[in-house]
Amino acid sequence: MSKMVIKRFACNEIYTKVGETVRGKNVFIVQTATQDVNEDYMELFLLCDTMKRSFAKSVHVVLPHFGYSRQDRISEPRETVSAKLIADLIVKSGADHIVTFTLHSDQIQGFFDIPVDNINAQKLFVDYFKKKNLRDAVVVSPDAGGAKSAKNFAVQLGFPLAILHKSRPRHNVSEVTHVVGDVRNKVPIIYDDIIDTAGSVCTAKEALVQAGALDKVYLAATHPVFSNPATERLEKANFKEVVVTNSIPISPEKQLSNLKVLSLAPLIAKVIQNITKEKSVSNLYL
Amino acid sequence: MSKMVIKRFACNEIYTKVGETVRGKNVFIVQTATQDVNEDYMELFLLCDTMKRSFAKSVHVVLPHFGYSRQDRISEPRETVSAKLIADLIVKSGADHIVTFTLHSDQIQGFFDIPVDNINAQKLFVDYFKKKNLRDAVVVSPDAGGAKSAKNFAVQLGFPLAILHKSRPRHNVSEVTHVVGDVRNKVPIIYDDIIDTAGSVCTAKEALVQAGALDKVYLAATHPVFSNPATERLEKANFKEVVVTNSIPISPEKQLSNLKVLSLAPLIAKVIQNITKEKSVSNLYL
Amino acid sequence: MSKMVIKRFACNEIYTKVGETVRGKNVFIVQTATQDVNEDYMELFLLCDTMKRSFAKSVHVVLPHFGYSRQDRISEPRETVSAKLIADLIVKSGADHIVTFTLHSDQIQGFFDIPVDNINAQKLFVDYFKKKNLRDAVVVSPDAGGAKSAKNFAVQLGFPLAILHKSRPRHNVSEVTHVVGDVRNKVPIIYDDIIDTAGSVCTAKEALVQAGALDKVYLAATHPVFSNPATERLEKANFKEVVVTNSIPISPEKQLSNLKVLSLAPLIAKVIQNITKEKSVSNLYL
Amino acid sequence: MSKMVIKRFACNEIYTKVGETVRGKNVFIVQTATQDVNEDYMELFLLCDTMKRSFAKSVHVVLPHFGYSRQDRISEPRETVSAKLIADLIVKSGADHIVTFTLHSDQIQGFFDIPVDNINAQKLFVDYFKKKNLRDAVVVSPDAGGAKSAKNFAVQLGFPLAILHKSRPRHNVSEVTHVVGDVRNKVPIIYDDIIDTAGSVCTAKEALVQAGALDKVYLAATHPVFSNPATERLEKANFKEVVVTNSIPISPEKQLSNLKVLSLAPLIAKVIQNITKEKSVSNLYL
Amino acid sequence: MSKMVIKRFACNEIYTKVGETVRGKNVFIVQTATQDVNEDYMELFLLCDTMKRSFAKSVHVVLPHFGYSRQDRISEPRETVSAKLIADLIVKSGADHIVTFTLHSDQIQGFFDIPVDNINAQKLFVDYFKKKNLRDAVVVSPDAGGAKSAKNFAVQLGFPLAILHKSRPRHNVSEVTHVVGDVRNKVPIIYDDIIDTAGSVCTAKEALVQAGALDKVYLAATHPVFSNPATERLEKANFKEVVVTNSIPISPEKQLSNLKVLSLAPLIAKVIQNITKEKSVSNLYL
Amino acid sequence: MSKMVIKRFACNEIYTKVGETVRGKNVFIVQTATQDVNEDYMELFLLCDTMKRSFAKSVHVVLPHFGYSRQDRISEPRETVSAKLIADLIVKSGADHIVTFTLHSDQIQGFFDIPVDNINAQKLFVDYFKKKNLRDAVVVSPDAGGAKSAKNFAVQLGFPLAILHKSRPRHNVSEVTHVVGDVRNKVPIIYDDIIDTAGSVCTAKEALVQAGALDKVYLAATHPVFSNPATERLEKANFKEVVVTNSIPISPEKQLSNLKVLSLAPLIAKVIQNITKEKSVSNLYL
Repeated sequence: MSKMVIKRFACNEIYTKVGETVRGKNVFIVQTATQDVNEDYMELFLLCDTMKRSFAKSVHVVLPHFGYSRQDRISEPRETVSAKLIADLIVKSGADHIVTFTLHSDQIQGFFDIPVDNINAQKLFVDYFKKKNLRDAVVVSPDAGGAKSAKNFAVQLGFPLAILHKSRPRHNVSEVTHVVGDVRNKVPIIYDDIIDTAGSVCTAKEALVQAGALDKVYLAATHPVFSNPATERLEKANFKEVVVTNSIPISPEKQLSNLKVLSLAPLIAKVIQNITKEKSVSNLYL
Repeated sequence: MSKMVIKRFACNEIYTKVGETVRGKNVFIVQTATQDVNEDYMELFLLCDTMKRSFAKSVHVVLPHFGYSRQDRISEPRETVSAKLIADLIVKSGADHIVTFTLHSDQIQGFFDIPVDNINAQKLFVDYFKKKNLRDAVVVSPDAGGAKSAKNFAVQLGFPLAILHKSRPRHNVSEVTHVVGDVRNKVPIIYDDIIDTAGSVCTAKEALVQAGALDKVYLAATHPVFSNPATERLEKANFKEVVVTNSIPISPEKQLSNLKVLSLAPLIAKVIQNITKEKSVSNLYL
Repeated sequence: MSKMVIKRFACNEIYTKVGETVRGKNVFIVQTATQDVNEDYMELFLLCDTMKRSFAKSVHVVLPHFGYSRQDRISEPRETVSAKLIADLIVKSGADHIVTFTLHSDQIQGFFDIPVDNINAQKLFVDYFKKKNLRDAVVVSPDAGGAKSAKNFAVQLGFPLAILHKSRPRHNVSEVTHVVGDVRNKVPIIYDDIIDTAGSVCTAKEALVQAGALDKVYLAATHPVFSNPATERLEKANFKEVVVTNSIPISPEKQLSNLKVLSLAPLIAKVIQNITKEKSVSNLYL
Repeated sequence: MSKMVIKRFACNEIYTKVGETVRGKNVFIVQTATQDVNEDYMELFLLCDTMKRSFAKSVHVVLPHFGYSRQDRISEPRETVSAKLIADLIVKSGADHIVTFTLHSDQIQGFFDIPVDNINAQKLFVDYFKKKNLRDAVVVSPDAGGAKSAKNFAVQLGFPLAILHKSRPRHNVSEVTHVVGDVRNKVPIIYDDIIDTAGSVCTAKEALVQAGALDKVYLAATHPVFSNPATERLEKANFKEVVVTNSIPISPEKQLSNLKVLSLAPLIAKVIQNITKEKSVSNLYL
Repeated sequence: MSKMVIKRFACNEIYTKVGETVRGKNVFIVQTATQDVNEDYMELFLLCDTMKRSFAKSVHVVLPHFGYSRQDRISEPRETVSAKLIADLIVKSGADHIVTFTLHSDQIQGFFDIPVDNINAQKLFVDYFKKKNLRDAVVVSPDAGGAKSAKNFAVQLGFPLAILHKSRPRHNVSEVTHVVGDVRNKVPIIYDDIIDTAGSVCTAKEALVQAGALDKVYLAATHPVFSNPATERLEKANFKEVVVTNSIPISPEKQLSNLKVLSLAPLIAKVIQNITKEKSVSNLYL
Repeated sequence: MSKMVIKRFACNEIYTKVGETVRGKNVFIVQTATQDVNEDYMELFLLCDTMKRSFAKSVHVVLPHFGYSRQDRISEPRETVSAKLIADLIVKSGADHIVTFTLHSDQIQGFFDIPVDNINAQKLFVDYFKKKNLRDAVVVSPDAGGAKSAKNFAVQLGFPLAILHKSRPRHNVSEVTHVVGDVRNKVPIIYDDIIDTAGSVCTAKEALVQAGALDKVYLAATHPVFSNPATERLEKANFKEVVVTNSIPISPEKQLSNLKVLSLAPLIAKVIQNITKEKSVSNLYL
């Protein structure tokens, strides 16, 4: 662990300095995107640049949660692909390699001109839920976009799959959530990559119970963004358990009573170790 | 329409030459990816470069079907993101703008450092199927990855959604196709972006009928790649109708008796017209 | 003025969208660096990128205050040149031209690979102070680094020059401010480019009075960053007047009783007008 | 030798995957341009990219025959320099170094932004012909463009030089082949870099015999492209011997009865060995 | 013609400034490589950069003689391709287009990533010599490398071709010039692209006369570099006439009595005119 | 020390070749900017390129005096930032790292996209003057732009500071030099970075003596450019001593009787040694 100086001037400009020589060294920068996503990225850009100007041999960025990953395509005219811009700026700042976990879409790897190791954290969830020995469970994707990822999860656990999607039957009529697949008398495990304001997963839980599922709903998601009012909503929704990773630190006031946090630390340690020894990291892909 | 010389030497090297001056002109190159996808791309690279070296003001590439689009992510270690490489090579060759239709994944837009207009051809299919006045139909995604796109199609037609996915219950046991959603006594419209060898859509049809759907199955897909043995399989599968666009020309021997081809030509013409007049193309996005 | 959509998601990610077509247009983005300098820059990066992806002909960034401009060189080993990185990121995001005012150092122009119009706001201060008809005034640079700029100001007003600098005579002895030049019985005009926490200018005022200057000290500076505790310090220091430009908006709680704000708006309007008409902006350089 | 997976999907898209870890390794890709030159290059682009994304330390491309090398300049307006584009695309795909043999023009080295070792295979031909102890031979360049290379060959063998060139005396009069230099009663060795359709070398042979040369004509050329109808023409032309290298594999049906193939393998092995040991390859330049 | 300020400081650094606004204009810089080739290029780099920073719309460089063009390939290990570096530096400095005349090798076009119009000045020589109505002339290339260009010249004039080349029969034996082709009783026109020190052309003249040619030898070459001792040698060699273009200005002390200078000015004027009007320049290619 | 071939052709083109293999080596090029600054830079560009094409692992450029460093900003419209262009051209030519001494402005580091070690030679002057044990000395900056650097020098020596600046009171009235700070009865040490034509330092000396300083004036400056008529002026001005470094070689005819040259060689040796051993060079920064 290198001594790194990161401070802020009164005007909020970030100042970075490496505390010891990194000349000819492989540098790993571990930085995630929290609620202060823009500050986090500016700091990351400056850190990469500082390392490059200080003659690091290569700069590896470990980015457990890739902020802006949901802005990965243009869905309306004259929007932009923000995730691609972020990728470009990270590379321009001096990164040589990215390690990240469960990208919102796997295609984001292609936004980078440098190698990206996109480690799938799903295996942590598979291990965790296998130990529970649930019977008659069903894996549920809260929307159609997540169907593929939920399917893989379902197949590994040996559970069936269901998918929710919303539509508005007619103008001025409120949105209806459709449950595709059979959930009656089953224990649902809602599986998603990110919990942001938790609105859709809470609606999903309701729709599932109304469709006949047992009111013992698990929520499993890799990245606990937990924007307001996520905590409040999740507490009220009364999930059986909310299972996330520590890809984003959760502040004390956002700790839920039924929260289970799976640690990415052993995976990150293994990645750094293997890269340092120039060994393959492929066995970590699942 | 500009006179363009494209010929092949005996050694198969492609030779390109612009037949008249393009100095200061906006050039549109319309080229799609057919069964000879590698030849098509090499020709495209040379065409773009020829235009640039001949002082074209800007080079717009209209690429109805973006070949290699399914290789848009790394699913096993040490693969590459081939679609990203293709994007890089097109840009390096001199393209300034891409117009394409119904990309396999919307994220591919972000593979390009230049603007991409990804026109959704879905509206052609919506119009076509609305005129049929089908009752009790269900839109079916043949796999979980296409769920989102199928959902949008279903919502626009006002039909319910079903999703298929496969799994192998145990080692050495053959793969099972799961039908998620209710298809009993319904007319299925299988909706996909590409028909390649048609294996999965034919299996899908069987699974749907076994699950109680009516044996009047429609198949709708934007890009008719029709690799062998697609034609044979589709004829045998006896679909009610196979509906595609002309994003890829279909050779006479691959014409099916129940094939319906929707033309992209009016959309392409409109795009070229609007760009030439520096007008917005956003109304064409759907 | 174009309709621009800039909003924030609950997770603080910025979302940008252009409200109308900019295809083939010259776009001017006016954005300054405030106390939220990192958020401001991330927003600027996204705006530039959105314009480029929406086919703007060229993107002109008007950046009245260039944040991070004081980090323009490496003064200790293993620091970085943050201002250069910011320049690189702006260009990578899609800017074609920068218009800025009174850069902390003129050399920053060379950090950009694109043309930079660095408009000197000094003329506004010259006009303003000429009207005061001060007698026996002296222009004071609060540190040696600003001597050149203060000299130009002094020459234009026809006043003499003085320069302050600090040193620590011996270890464990407190810093002493040296007054270089004669300030006795004169009205000092402290001239600087940025007022940040206002510490050094307040110390400067004290040192000047102690050195025999009249206690009628003016403070003139282009960029009112006003980081805490600037307002408090300035109120207490009791300057005759604090003169700044509106390159950075000053929030109501930071308004000083003796504050005079000179507007850059006419200069910016003129620059935009001339560029749009492809006329020279050189007459605005001073 | 690394395990490399290269396969083709039914739609002809190429799929590449490295079979074992190449992290931190020097990778050598040996690929030549055959009759399927476009497929070969697309495969090469994908291989380079796969190596880069898999963290190879450096990618050396050994390209015995550089396809498109004859399109190395613009001879008519609005053509392009195809060989330069190919060079750009190879570099963009991730190559760090090129090793090639007897480029059509030496200047092609300058098309690359990376180092190129252009090994001259001429020494193989010099050794081979020296052993024959021919008397009264003459080295013949089949056209003026190859005069320099033929001259070097002649000087090394100690033989005189002759050059052929064609002209059309008047419009509507057929082309005449001029023999520059004295070939009477001599054994001609036609020396060229590439045999494509063999048209010009067969015409050359006729012209030489007509000009008084002995009908014992040798043909020596580095790259046996052998496009149709090369084999047929060469058989009919009845050369004393056709001497080529194995820079391009010759399919069984193109094997001539009087063909002599000189192997590049020892040279390639030496190059790879020296680069791996960071030794000079300059002694291989001739 | 724009007012351009180019001056030199006492320390020899060049200072450039554009005298009037070039914002949005097409700029043509006419600069050639003289005996002060390095100074010329540094000045050119600065001029291009000044134009770019002053917002020129595009920078066209008219470079009648491309200095360093003979260093266009690596003939010994560990040399470089200097002409390629010059091309890279011109482009990096801001050039968008190059117009040049009779490049030493046509492949140099491919060294540039921007379009190059390589105008062949040969037509001027063809016109000039046609008017002379010479009989029994022969076009002579002074070395094998120039054979192709001399051949084209010969074909257009309807004269035969001869080629000279040198070899050293044995170690420690002086070099011999071989005359390939029949020159007896003919009027030789030695045709080359550059006259540098004139050593080889003077040797060539001697060899021709010795081989039986008439002692009425013409020398025709596009670029009169005329390095010392060219003038002295040419005077002594007593050519019938030395014909060059004004691609490089010839200082008064280097004016030969039998010098004929053909002007490129009409060609350059036509190129500039056509480009300004966005018309084709292809009719100027010959 | 590697054998390097640098020669000039008769036409003044530079030819470079590395005398032995540099494959995989760290190469240090030591080149400074002399009176032949343009030739020096062209040679440097070619050297860097030759190293890169010869497979050097990294190219370190030691540039004791960075020519064009005073053209580091735009002071009048339509000038350019020449120092930035030089930086770009050096990097484009293949440099990976720059080591330089006492840049005219520290910001020039930011002109490079590669790491720059800007070693401050001030410590040599501090050591030298400390040994003199001067009493009642004053450090003088000859203009306001050098105030900061002079201040640091003054603080380290424990002397007061004075600053000179010029102004023209009214049109058609000659320029007046103002002395800011008290110099009466003191020994002035004029401190500057570059001595070019020595005009301003000689005027400075006069002004100082007129303002009451002792006529025992020292002149200390890092880079002895010594353009004409520097030597003549300096001899006439009769300085007590002129102290410079050997960053630029001084030709015999420019040797002054009172010249003292401090050697940079030990610093350069230390830098090369530390970089080769991948150790920090930060202790050399001052």
